[in-house]
Amino acid sequence: MNRRKALGVAATGGLSTILATATPPAFSQGRKELRMQMTWAKGSPGLATGANALAEFVGKATGGALTIKVYGAGEIVPALQTMDAVSAGSLHMGHGYPSYWAGKVPAINFIGPIPFGITSQEQNAWLAYGGGQELADKLYAKLGVKFFPSGNTSVQAAGWYTKEVNSLADYKGLKIRAGGIGGKVLQAAGATPVQMSLGEVPQALQSGAIDGADFVGPYNDMAFGLHRVAKYYYWPGWMEPCGALDCFVNLKTWEGLTAQEQEVIRVGNQYANARVLDEFVAKNAQAFAELVNVHKVQVKMLSDDTLKGLGQLASEVVRAESARDAESKEIFDSLMKFRAQVMPYTRVAEYEFMRARALTVKS
Amino acid sequence: MNRRKALGVAATGGLSTILATATPPAFSQGRKELRMQMTWAKGSPGLATGANALAEFVGKATGGALTIKVYGAGEIVPALQTMDAVSAGSLHMGHGYPSYWAGKVPAINFIGPIPFGITSQEQNAWLAYGGGQELADKLYAKLGVKFFPSGNTSVQAAGWYTKEVNSLADYKGLKIRAGGIGGKVLQAAGATPVQMSLGEVPQALQSGAIDGADFVGPYNDMAFGLHRVAKYYYWPGWMEPCGALDCFVNLKTWEGLTAQEQEVIRVGNQYANARVLDEFVAKNAQAFAELVNVHKVQVKMLSDDTLKGLGQLASEVVRAESARDAESKEIFDSLMKFRAQVMPYTRVAEYEFMRARALTVKS
Repeated sequence: MNRRKALGVAATGGLSTILATATPPAFSQGRKELRMQMTWAKGSPGLATGANALAEFVGKATGGALTIKVYGAGEIVPALQTMDAVSAGSLHMGHGYPSYWAGKVPAINFIGPIPFGITSQEQNAWLAYGGGQELADKLYAKLGVKFFPSGNTSVQAAGWYTKEVNSLADYKGLKIRAGGIGGKVLQAAGATPVQMSLGEVPQALQSGAIDGADFVGPYNDMAFGLHRVAKYYYWPGWMEPCGALDCFVNLKTWEGLTAQEQEVIRVGNQYANARVLDEFVAKNAQAFAELVNVHKVQVKMLSDDTLKGLGQLASEVVRAESARDAESKEIFDSLMKFRAQVMPYTRVAEYEFMRARALTVKS
Repeated sequence: MNRRKALGVAATGGLSTILATATPPAFSQGRKELRMQMTWAKGSPGLATGANALAEFVGKATGGALTIKVYGAGEIVPALQTMDAVSAGSLHMGHGYPSYWAGKVPAINFIGPIPFGITSQEQNAWLAYGGGQELADKLYAKLGVKFFPSGNTSVQAAGWYTKEVNSLADYKGLKIRAGGIGGKVLQAAGATPVQMSLGEVPQALQSGAIDGADFVGPYNDMAFGLHRVAKYYYWPGWMEPCGALDCFVNLKTWEGLTAQEQEVIRVGNQYANARVLDEFVAKNAQAFAELVNVHKVQVKMLSDDTLKGLGQLASEVVRAESARDAESKEIFDSLMKFRAQVMPYTRVAEYEFMRARALTVKS
């Protein structure tokens, strides 16, 4: 995923009305309603599940005393103006993807995935027990909002390509839809990162305007028909090994809620966080099987040499990003410390189990 | 973990008073209180986090109108009588480990980990999107209770051994603390599975009464000092690659709650489920580093030949278990279908990412 993925179909028809002053929750017969806009269209597979699960839960858990009305991208403001609207208080809440806001606070990029970084399970553990939540709160507070992790994409694919990538050198001259830190790594490898919305990708691949595209994972990729316009499906997902979605609440709105309402929203987001990841794991598996078995997609693995080359470039790019400001350095150091500690354990536990399983069962 | 792990220190001092009739929630000034006993001691690292997180949330989310009072193993009834007490209604709720109840409903073993089965992330996805919740509800309903997943241990270690296991044949004649399906696989390999409580394990290893012990993972294992009494720490965790904890509510109690209260308990358990897994990942990583770097524990990997042999035996044992009754067959088939679909995806996504990361970063 990247920053421009937010610009889904719905975004183009969006109103750009941002009200100048903070809006209190709408009250009606003692009931409060909060307005939340997503940065993607209403029915987006997996991505929209978090906001909807949160809203449904908050309504039920408060017996309807507090409700959240969910809007799709563009229904109130264009997708990428969601944060501006929540900061200003014209929307109470938003639901999106951290790197969309990295133009405002660069360190927020590190709440998103970093190339060769940590998995979704590790990211959740870092947020809950590794200091991640506190660091994220500090960064989002600069935008006048309270942060919650609210979904996770799991490992995203390395992308769809119309040309083969057999070595690091093969990236030279390719035009690839990619953004964020991953896009900078591809640029360092000699490719040209191109930004465009989700909806534009299929045609751009078909027309040859781009040679490859970073998208999400099998569940979303298949829904957008990428297997019909690109021959090769590249893995492993070195660019985005995890992908926390974010829910953000205008700080004044947040502080105006009761402790009870705050707790319902906090835990509702934890529920959304788990629910989205569960859906991605189950539905990605299903879509992957269909892509391979029905659509006969060619799944290609990047070679070890290519991965080593990308790893070297990624290390330089990520380090440079972390040196942009003190906040970036602080969050990068926290992540690297956590990663250094969790990697040997994940390797002996998750990884070696998966290896053992594959010895005994054909996958 | 196994069935007898429930018999922690606290269990031995437990009262065995099971009241004969179902107790309604205690009412006081319009407030309802539910009594929940865990199958482990109150401060058990990670394991006790789920029940406590749930109780804290329910109290806060209802503004104190509904509260859950948490008891440790043995405070009301002995640990392994928790289900009987909840079934009978003398306790409203319990918090434990599915395989503890497999003596009552054998198919419940499949809500627990199965050797070479699925990971915690896959188990969560199966429960939420693969039909697992519905199957579990059906099985727990036979005990008169409503089921919720309420924590997950992540991959558990293969165990602590005082003797080396270099081949499948080396298991012959070993006395190993192990239970459940994993214990039966070890038995098929020629070992003698021995059942004992958590608290008895360190001395049993030290005295030579047992040669090895299946326990939990680094976080719990280190807390119990197993590294001081056994030389070899075996991985990968082929026996228990995941480990859902369960929360169960007396069905009459459940049906007597309002829809609002039910929703708070349902989502509170999802929160507990995520919270426990996050804690295990973060704290296992920390403990593993300490075991290796400070206590100089010898981490041993079972050989591929040993794993293949165990895999063959496990396949036979698991298949035999699944043939016990129609319910076991139904849940086994559901799990196997999900596993067959998720494995190729997990391999290309999670596994290949971890492999790629290891190419570029020393772990």
